[in-house]
Amino acid sequence: MDAQEFRARGREMVDYVADYLETIGTRTPLPSVLPGYLRELIPDEAPLNGESWEEVKKDIDRVIMPGVTHWHSPQFHAYFPTSSSYPAILGDMLSDGIGCIGFTWVTSPACTELEVSMMDWLAKMLNLPQEFLFSGGGKGGGVIQGTASEATLVALLSARTTMINKLKKDNPQMTQGQIVDKLVAYCSEEAHSSVVRASLIGMVQMKSLPTDDKGSLRGSELESAIIKDKEQGLIPFFLCATVGTTSTCGTDNLLELGPICECNKHDIWMHVDAAYAGSAFICPEFRPLLDGVEHSMSFNFNPHKWLQVTFDCSALWVKDSGLVSGAFELNPVYLNHDNQGQAMPDYRHWQIPLGRRFRSLKLWFVLRMFGVTGLQEQIRKDVSLAHQFEDLVKSDDRFEIVRPVTFGLVCFRLKGTNEINETLTKKINDDRRIHLTPSKVKDTFFLRFAVCATKTQVSDVKFAWTVIQELTDSLLSSPK
Amino acid sequence: MDAQEFRARGREMVDYVADYLETIGTRTPLPSVLPGYLRELIPDEAPLNGESWEEVKKDIDRVIMPGVTHWHSPQFHAYFPTSSSYPAILGDMLSDGIGCIGFTWVTSPACTELEVSMMDWLAKMLNLPQEFLFSGGGKGGGVIQGTASEATLVALLSARTTMINKLKKDNPQMTQGQIVDKLVAYCSEEAHSSVVRASLIGMVQMKSLPTDDKGSLRGSELESAIIKDKEQGLIPFFLCATVGTTSTCGTDNLLELGPICECNKHDIWMHVDAAYAGSAFICPEFRPLLDGVEHSMSFNFNPHKWLQVTFDCSALWVKDSGLVSGAFELNPVYLNHDNQGQAMPDYRHWQIPLGRRFRSLKLWFVLRMFGVTGLQEQIRKDVSLAHQFEDLVKSDDRFEIVRPVTFGLVCFRLKGTNEINETLTKKINDDRRIHLTPSKVKDTFFLRFAVCATKTQVSDVKFAWTVIQELTDSLLSSPK
Repeated sequence: MDAQEFRARGREMVDYVADYLETIGTRTPLPSVLPGYLRELIPDEAPLNGESWEEVKKDIDRVIMPGVTHWHSPQFHAYFPTSSSYPAILGDMLSDGIGCIGFTWVTSPACTELEVSMMDWLAKMLNLPQEFLFSGGGKGGGVIQGTASEATLVALLSARTTMINKLKKDNPQMTQGQIVDKLVAYCSEEAHSSVVRASLIGMVQMKSLPTDDKGSLRGSELESAIIKDKEQGLIPFFLCATVGTTSTCGTDNLLELGPICECNKHDIWMHVDAAYAGSAFICPEFRPLLDGVEHSMSFNFNPHKWLQVTFDCSALWVKDSGLVSGAFELNPVYLNHDNQGQAMPDYRHWQIPLGRRFRSLKLWFVLRMFGVTGLQEQIRKDVSLAHQFEDLVKSDDRFEIVRPVTFGLVCFRLKGTNEINETLTKKINDDRRIHLTPSKVKDTFFLRFAVCATKTQVSDVKFAWTVIQELTDSLLSSPK
Repeated sequence: MDAQEFRARGREMVDYVADYLETIGTRTPLPSVLPGYLRELIPDEAPLNGESWEEVKKDIDRVIMPGVTHWHSPQFHAYFPTSSSYPAILGDMLSDGIGCIGFTWVTSPACTELEVSMMDWLAKMLNLPQEFLFSGGGKGGGVIQGTASEATLVALLSARTTMINKLKKDNPQMTQGQIVDKLVAYCSEEAHSSVVRASLIGMVQMKSLPTDDKGSLRGSELESAIIKDKEQGLIPFFLCATVGTTSTCGTDNLLELGPICECNKHDIWMHVDAAYAGSAFICPEFRPLLDGVEHSMSFNFNPHKWLQVTFDCSALWVKDSGLVSGAFELNPVYLNHDNQGQAMPDYRHWQIPLGRRFRSLKLWFVLRMFGVTGLQEQIRKDVSLAHQFEDLVKSDDRFEIVRPVTFGLVCFRLKGTNEINETLTKKINDDRRIHLTPSKVKDTFFLRFAVCATKTQVSDVKFAWTVIQELTDSLLSSPK
């Protein structure tokens, strides 16, 4: 395919994407294929000679679309939203066109420097403490990771190395193994599975601490765990606090937890994971829920979840970038350059992979074309829709709301057993008109209704509730 | 931006990308900006209200392009190539348009299933052992990772968990720390820095073993290291063998190393990292260099380096996917689905991040539109260009070739000191007409000439050599 053909095919693809997104409401959000469907539709091996674009293009509808789960359908209410917007797609197109690999400053200065500026822009939008900004004058700064899982892992590994280095300085005879056997990290029992996974990768013990009845990890729980663990000779070094948990959007109490962790008291690195909820803090009315973040060493949220940026774009800030880059910095000759260690970061030291795409372009396009007010509008609209759904649930005596609704997620259930709620979940998803996912907290199984797609309107929320009521009627009236 | 505006702006962006790539040869490959250049060109914070596309678009040329390193310039000869092609860009556009997050099968069956099929297609193109294929009937299969760094880390962590589980079964009293203190991994002294970095993350000792004079790690070196380490009570568990090292494209001797590692003898997981060179094995004439891969537990190469797939797309195969997914599998209720554990993998267990893009689309487009022969042609052209450059170097008595040329990389140097070669490297890059990067092996500093851009022609190779000769004349004639 030469440039001339690309000009034509690129236009076709732009139209295909626009058509798809304009008509997405006409598709059922969850496909009906069974595992293995696709293998039957394509050859067993790659063609020897190139095929034409016409042949390839017609297979998008024949092979791919029947098996796509439509995350941007207004009837999709599962998990959390994944963002997407036309400006972000344009940014990714430019990123692909440039096709640079910005692992050090010199490998594409614009790639590093736009990211530096965008992370400062974003930090200011969230009113993060100055220490997290490149322009804050200290060692702080932000970096785009692929996912919150990676951000948590980077934070945990940085904390681990920091603590190991400290302990080895005081106890040079201790081996790494002796140290990791004593290291202990904490999170709330409602933290995302990726937090526990990070501890398995990092080979440290992660203790899941109980939350209060609002799903919040409180200071007293952390403090008593620390005291108990220290009495047993363990070394607490890390807390992953969550603001907006996956199951219920619960929020750990940063104002209580932070001071307990801060270095001068217990030497514990507090990482704040606000993967979904973080975007809401560009609205002043939500920002108080992030108070206490000033006590954290690192903070992460995903613009690709709720800030109109197409996946992947996970924003991580740290107060002391030296503790991150210093954790695993290696400098072979083939990666060195004249300007390293100067005014701009070499982001390869801030992440697990070496290579990196020019992801800040899509962030730049989104922030400029929506503006702060445009992004705030979307957040407020989604939260308002969640409250409207909450009202519908409350208006039906058969149901109960599981946790207070704060952001764009409503946790609800049929009053009664877990089993009946499991059956209802299955009925809803088997029905295919809407899609949602359940969760379970403190042995209570419930349904999660997340306002996901940008296009979701009041009518979609009402439609979803009509479907749920209809299937509930059928469930409750059917013989056991 | 609504769909109608996207149709127009998307076309503009398609043309912008086509224009950029058509005229890339007119730009110097390395920009001349200094660190901090970009911050001066944009505001300190995000705009309150959205801006128009016209305002954003004009800043691409004003703000971004002056700081871009042009990896697809035919005068770019640094590092290794990063691939890009129009079919791959179209695939990414579709991936962004669909915008699904395929972490489990149900979150977009097409996303998982196309990847399963494409990994089998690719495996067949490279003539990998049946055990690596999903269709091989065993536990094998492939997955797209972001980078080779992640692939190496996933392999090392899987090997670590496998060995820890085994040791704990036999010695239930051993702590994790006692085990990791004894674990030892190996690589060649010329392995990529990301291999050592993986060991730091994984908290295991990584020993860099000496290579022979062709840059190859030999079986005898590994065997004596294993024997010595076992005598000291250490537990060897992992070897990362490299096929096509970053510095010189050296190739470890898999046929010697493999049998030493295989489970029934020493319980060592051999991972083969062929990040760059792997693509060449779609050509039968290069495939013998991969012989011995059948002894490995995992194999990785980057289609985003040399197979026309735009970054990121790193292909990892494993013989026993249970050892990978089993290493860190966690199954919270909110990620469960009815079809898990069945015919199709839940790829979230195969990688570090949770979320994942629909990357197999670009691979599918590339394999179909180039066909195997089209991709072979590009490989052969690049290797031929490298040999032509080698001939030019050999024709000038002042220079020497450092290592035999096998793929698309030529390692060369001025006969003489490291210092004069460092000076020459700096002169070449300061001159800006071409860009290349150096390396250092066994205390010998040398220059690396990599054939990178798809567009590179004989005339570009000759041009590069003319520039190098000219700058050498000037260097050698200037007063010390």
